[in-house]
Amino acid sequence: MPVVLNELLGRELIKIYQDTDSFNFSIDSMLLSDFVSITARCKRICDLCTGNAPIPLYLSLRTKASIIGVEVQENSYKLAIDSVKINHLENQIEIIQDNLIGISDKIGKSKFDCVTVNPPFFKVGNHQINPSDSKAIARHEILATLEDIIREASNLLNTRGRLALVHRPERLPEIFALFHKYHIEPKRLRLVYPKMGMEVNHILIEGIKDGSPDGLRIEAPLYVYKSDNTWTDEVLKIYNFTKE
Amino acid sequence: MPVVLNELLGRELIKIYQDTDSFNFSIDSMLLSDFVSITARCKRICDLCTGNAPIPLYLSLRTKASIIGVEVQENSYKLAIDSVKINHLENQIEIIQDNLIGISDKIGKSKFDCVTVNPPFFKVGNHQINPSDSKAIARHEILATLEDIIREASNLLNTRGRLALVHRPERLPEIFALFHKYHIEPKRLRLVYPKMGMEVNHILIEGIKDGSPDGLRIEAPLYVYKSDNTWTDEVLKIYNFTKE
Repeated sequence: MPVVLNELLGRELIKIYQDTDSFNFSIDSMLLSDFVSITARCKRICDLCTGNAPIPLYLSLRTKASIIGVEVQENSYKLAIDSVKINHLENQIEIIQDNLIGISDKIGKSKFDCVTVNPPFFKVGNHQINPSDSKAIARHEILATLEDIIREASNLLNTRGRLALVHRPERLPEIFALFHKYHIEPKRLRLVYPKMGMEVNHILIEGIKDGSPDGLRIEAPLYVYKSDNTWTDEVLKIYNFTKE
Repeated sequence: MPVVLNELLGRELIKIYQDTDSFNFSIDSMLLSDFVSITARCKRICDLCTGNAPIPLYLSLRTKASIIGVEVQENSYKLAIDSVKINHLENQIEIIQDNLIGISDKIGKSKFDCVTVNPPFFKVGNHQINPSDSKAIARHEILATLEDIIREASNLLNTRGRLALVHRPERLPEIFALFHKYHIEPKRLRLVYPKMGMEVNHILIEGIKDGSPDGLRIEAPLYVYKSDNTWTDEVLKIYNFTKE
């Protein structure tokens, strides 16, 4: 298992351990970490499906809130632990190895101000999957479905707490239906377009537990690449690769 | 009631009667007419909340299908009749004055391949409204709610028929829920941004009656204005104001 230490964010702000045999963090996690609203009243955050913890690591730059990352797979869990240590963030970030189903019974119902999640994007149905493949578990709903995730997130959140997730556009109607079922009012939607003129490939969505039904806002589009296939200024800024 | 004759589309292709006391057609109707999928098998179209019939008039340039426009208000109905006549489209477009609630009992259940609608955008609840004001009826859900509209549209459509509507972004979760309730599978979503960097102000959505749940596609953004406040090339093309 060759493990390498990469920069998660530019200018050596945060380092992260990666493992070529595991699912590595991708731009989705960075975009979600940038997208989620972190208010002054946010004291406790839970990141589900945390993987090697890119979201907790990123959020440590935005907030002093305590952050719990939950990861079911041992190899990713160990990388997350090592990454927290190398960044000296043990006092802010705790990593737990567990399945997220029932997690609110263990770490506290209605105890969190914010839940983030970059979940498996694909249903199991139509794909040939090896269930012992750790990358497959990170990508497909083998150990938890979208409904499991949104139900548990709702259980974790206190009233007015926020759930932010990144997902694929084809799941948007289902996400709205599950938000409704578990009393999360969608408030913000941002669409990620790989490039100008192309279709959406990721969505960023945030809702408020028991929020008022006063309407969804769809924010300005987020483009990842410019026409010359280099990152846009906004993505460079999210990665902290620009000098302000 | 000062009635004026305007060009609906560039190069004098289509004319439309407008009335300064009534709700006049807006860009929403043009964008929807351009957005809706018109396939070769589309033989019968119904446009609900047709107003002075901008959508049937526009669609006459795209298809030979027969088109019925339904409008509840007498002043808009009369303008629609006159506009159909001035364009010599009486053989293709029929205008009916009626409330859309129960309209499928009158013009035929499961008889249409396509239903378009640019409905009232706003709920009655939070606004001071004069219910005898014809502009208010066009803008607010006084005579029909979003649920009435989607239920009737579903009744009108045959299996695999398409419903296309334009609406406000804050109603998107409700639209998905009502599509689901009335067996319309959302297939295409396009978001209208007034300008680069601004939030969405209109959504274009199309679903298929009894369609397969194989996923929603979110298409490239549609921008209305350039940074210098002139129309974008795409909008100029929709309005037929460009020379190809």
